[in-house]
Amino acid sequence: MTQQTSQPDVTAALLIIGNEILSGRTKDANLPFLAEKLNGIGVRLREARVVPDIEAEIIDAVNALRARYDYVFTTGGIGPTHDDITSECIAKAFGVPLERHPEAVRRLQEHYQTDQINEARLRMANVPAGGILVDNPISKAPGYQIGNVFVLAGVPMIMQGMVDNLLPRLKGGAPMLSRTVSCALAEGTLAEGLEAVQNRYPAIEIGSYPYLRQRQYGVSLVLRGTVETLLDEATDAVAALVRDLGGEPEVTVGTT
Amino acid sequence: MTQQTSQPDVTAALLIIGNEILSGRTKDANLPFLAEKLNGIGVRLREARVVPDIEAEIIDAVNALRARYDYVFTTGGIGPTHDDITSECIAKAFGVPLERHPEAVRRLQEHYQTDQINEARLRMANVPAGGILVDNPISKAPGYQIGNVFVLAGVPMIMQGMVDNLLPRLKGGAPMLSRTVSCALAEGTLAEGLEAVQNRYPAIEIGSYPYLRQRQYGVSLVLRGTVETLLDEATDAVAALVRDLGGEPEVTVGTT
Repeated sequence: MTQQTSQPDVTAALLIIGNEILSGRTKDANLPFLAEKLNGIGVRLREARVVPDIEAEIIDAVNALRARYDYVFTTGGIGPTHDDITSECIAKAFGVPLERHPEAVRRLQEHYQTDQINEARLRMANVPAGGILVDNPISKAPGYQIGNVFVLAGVPMIMQGMVDNLLPRLKGGAPMLSRTVSCALAEGTLAEGLEAVQNRYPAIEIGSYPYLRQRQYGVSLVLRGTVETLLDEATDAVAALVRDLGGEPEVTVGTT
Repeated sequence: MTQQTSQPDVTAALLIIGNEILSGRTKDANLPFLAEKLNGIGVRLREARVVPDIEAEIIDAVNALRARYDYVFTTGGIGPTHDDITSECIAKAFGVPLERHPEAVRRLQEHYQTDQINEARLRMANVPAGGILVDNPISKAPGYQIGNVFVLAGVPMIMQGMVDNLLPRLKGGAPMLSRTVSCALAEGTLAEGLEAVQNRYPAIEIGSYPYLRQRQYGVSLVLRGTVETLLDEATDAVAALVRDLGGEPEVTVGTT
């Protein structure tokens, strides 16, 4: 059996800010995007929170998460309207003033015609003191990094552009790899054998996710880890278990 | 102007349990479903958290949320496999033993053939002492309520059936109503006037959500509240603002 080493995880949390998510109106699409990008550079998304547009809630969540994880990403609340209060909250969370960032102002002035620039739009250039801009390739108004917190837009296309731009700043570990063994067996049939495989491979995380497809129950047995040889050994063990129980394992390779 | 009364909100939180959400593999669909159902009975979803399948994380989150909100809903981790640890965690969070619930056992025995019943499946009948079952109309293994916490399945079809079954147990307030004023104006153009409307109607929550559709920017101005006359007054004010700025407001009625 391959040597099972465990390295300290580099961890991250996502703070989703916005009443529109909690009301059920808008379905968050940023978590899966961020998670997959982080997997690729060996950073593990370990927690996510969704909070409303309420100052105290945002400040408390930012401070709880930044103390606990290597990186924190926030999405939402950095636009020009009254309900966009994220930057004020981040400044208060860090105990620093909120300042108009000259380079951010310059980018907005370049993007908007002179008669379009107003106080509301200039609010998007407010950055907590010490913040380092994150480029916005879509609508120009930048996000920023302060300490280990990255403050990003909520609109997925803009958020995604910002994430692509900030990724080189992150220091990750070994990329997360995954294997999925799908079969038409029931979870309850597999459970005992699967636990035995999990116990043999503590460095591999094994999850069991049932699905119902065309009135047929099935299960995706997902193995995640950073050491490929070990992951493949454990995957072979799960596939063998499925065959022993009369199933037909179908193995796919991924990163989630 | 209609009298603006504010009544104490009935609040809820959602705790999404599962590595598969944080890895980006599975996109949560339960939050929007729950939020909309709660809106309809006057309960506000005020926070959501996603935590991994780690005992201490689940216990801490359950205890933080149940102390703070009127209702807490958990999804995920109540199946038969080794990674399903929610019920053990809920029992520890409440400081009560985890017991095999006779009625839950009966339902599983009715659902499965005798040779299919095994220890893994019977784990799904483990309920923290004092728990009250929540019917599962799909795959029979029940969820349960303990105190103000409702423990539900993660598979959306099963979760949804459970929510429909538990709703009559909840005591809500006035249902949340919403109006959406869409137009092709930019947020930055609307911001000042929109804030003025918000200040005139503090009991109405006004959110501004930009979108990019067929290369055309637009914005959905969403008004939420429980008093319909007030909501309609504020909506008229926002629509008038849009027209004043040269836009064409399109008003739709909703609950999110």
